Amino acid sequence: MQIHNIIFTGRMYRELEAAWPGGADKQVRFLAESEVSEADMAWADAFVGFKPVPAFHLESVRWVHALGAGVDAFVYRKPWKPDVLLTRTTGSFGQKIGEYCLSHMLADLQHHDAFALSRSDRSWNPIPPLPLSGSRVTVMGTGSVGQELARMLQALGVEVSGVSMRGERKPHMDHVYPMSHIGDAVSAADWVINTLPLTPQTDKLFGPALFARMNGAGFINVGRGPSVDQAALLEALDQGHLRLAVLDVFEEEPLPDASPLWKHKDARVTPHVAAVTSVEEALGGFLDTLRKLEAGERELANRVDPVRGY
Amino acid sequence: MQIHNIIFTGRMYRELEAAWPGGADKQVRFLAESEVSEADMAWADAFVGFKPVPAFHLESVRWVHALGAGVDAFVYRKPWKPDVLLTRTTGSFGQKIGEYCLSHMLADLQHHDAFALSRSDRSWNPIPPLPLSGSRVTVMGTGSVGQELARMLQALGVEVSGVSMRGERKPHMDHVYPMSHIGDAVSAADWVINTLPLTPQTDKLFGPALFARMNGAGFINVGRGPSVDQAALLEALDQGHLRLAVLDVFEEEPLPDASPLWKHKDARVTPHVAAVTSVEEALGGFLDTLRKLEAGERELANRVDPVRGY
Repeated sequence: MQIHNIIFTGRMYRELEAAWPGGADKQVRFLAESEVSEADMAWADAFVGFKPVPAFHLESVRWVHALGAGVDAFVYRKPWKPDVLLTRTTGSFGQKIGEYCLSHMLADLQHHDAFALSRSDRSWNPIPPLPLSGSRVTVMGTGSVGQELARMLQALGVEVSGVSMRGERKPHMDHVYPMSHIGDAVSAADWVINTLPLTPQTDKLFGPALFARMNGAGFINVGRGPSVDQAALLEALDQGHLRLAVLDVFEEEPLPDASPLWKHKDARVTPHVAAVTSVEEALGGFLDTLRKLEAGERELANRVDPVRGY
Repeated sequence: MQIHNIIFTGRMYRELEAAWPGGADKQVRFLAESEVSEADMAWADAFVGFKPVPAFHLESVRWVHALGAGVDAFVYRKPWKPDVLLTRTTGSFGQKIGEYCLSHMLADLQHHDAFALSRSDRSWNPIPPLPLSGSRVTVMGTGSVGQELARMLQALGVEVSGVSMRGERKPHMDHVYPMSHIGDAVSAADWVINTLPLTPQTDKLFGPALFARMNGAGFINVGRGPSVDQAALLEALDQGHLRLAVLDVFEEEPLPDASPLWKHKDARVTPHVAAVTSVEEALGGFLDTLRKLEAGERELANRVDPVRGY
């Protein structure tokens, strides 16, 4: 496939323009999402951004490259043309999400909040930290992110289980459950971490039935907000099925002021930062994909199946 | 060596008594530190505790087993009888200290404090976390604790340097500096972590000269309090040689109310919890050492050289 006309949009379009290396045969337009017109869409071979813009359509575009790790904004409950290629940024999301999860697990086990409180009144109150090593973590999703997270956890002595659609064995996971046995996968877990993409199978996956199978686990959502039924999550916290919820993604972002999650004593809200795409990774990933595409390479590791949704 | 009469003392003497498995030929006394008398000391072959008690003397004791990882309370600036054996608890201190250090490094890099503040006023303020992977950490001390800490860091993509008396190569460390080049070892470090025992060589090691070689590093002290010149540390924080100080051990413990460290904006005080000896590990380590000793095994991995001090 040869690409001539490219639209870059999304929050980093100015930085991408500044970092753009040029290229004799490429016409490029760097535009804010609101600036992309029907005419731009009709002109472009390739669309690069985090999500569709208001004028987005697939009539002439042959390739869409998602700047984020998730593609649900493009394909979940949206029409897609089968002959349009969809790829995404991969980069170091696994490492970033791994560090995010570890930071919150360890902060909890090491009583950071209690010691911060002790500092505020200068009280020496030695509560022994709890070990991460030897704990049991269930990672929902066994793709590149889930595998890297599992590798990091396993290196720290954690027993890691995975959950995927079919339950195929994967590196760094002691066991992988198929989605049909998800309840068993969470019932003995000290922590349950969601890294799943948003698809019909994962929309509101974390609802009353699944939370009811958890036994005082910590829950971390670094996947997608709509995978969690928020009312069920709050109920699970109050009933003790969940001990703690660390939430980086939400059905509505920014999280509305009125959300009880902001100040729930057992919830830790962060503003969608676990896996931020950097300009370097965004541009590097795009250029690498472009080169492979134009060289006619058949295997694109970052290609997404628009029907499957990941 | 055959052991008949044993004193157990220190904060966990009651738990040790409850867990004591018995043994036909052993006489044991479980006592609070203040209860141990001259007569008890004269009666005992073996003394087991965290530190010397007021009545402590070495006239008839043949073996001292330290319940903690550090032995400075017994041998630093104290007389010792060369024929008295000194051993210590080893256990999982490396893993514990590794988890403690990781928790504080990651909490800093992941902006936990900033996000906690944002939660308090419900503001969505996405600051991208900084990566642990690729950062440079210098670990002072290359014993079992330093090596396990290094292993954990290296598994997470950290470049690890070590510092030891002689600079001998050690596993999981990309480079080991001898103490004579300690300034070079810290100048490029993002984090400097002290795990060294308290000896004449490490007393006030972290003073004005060494801090002046640091360039905005985070400093973590999980070794011994007197290794740090506290006035120099505060000066280094104010001058920017140090960016953050995470302190678990202090010259005086509990840390006095009047200490400016409690509320310094760039200091994180914790109450000597990074490597707490558990009753199981204390008793297991003691019994294992006792068994080897009575079987005449020559190699005791947890034997301490009282002259060297570690």
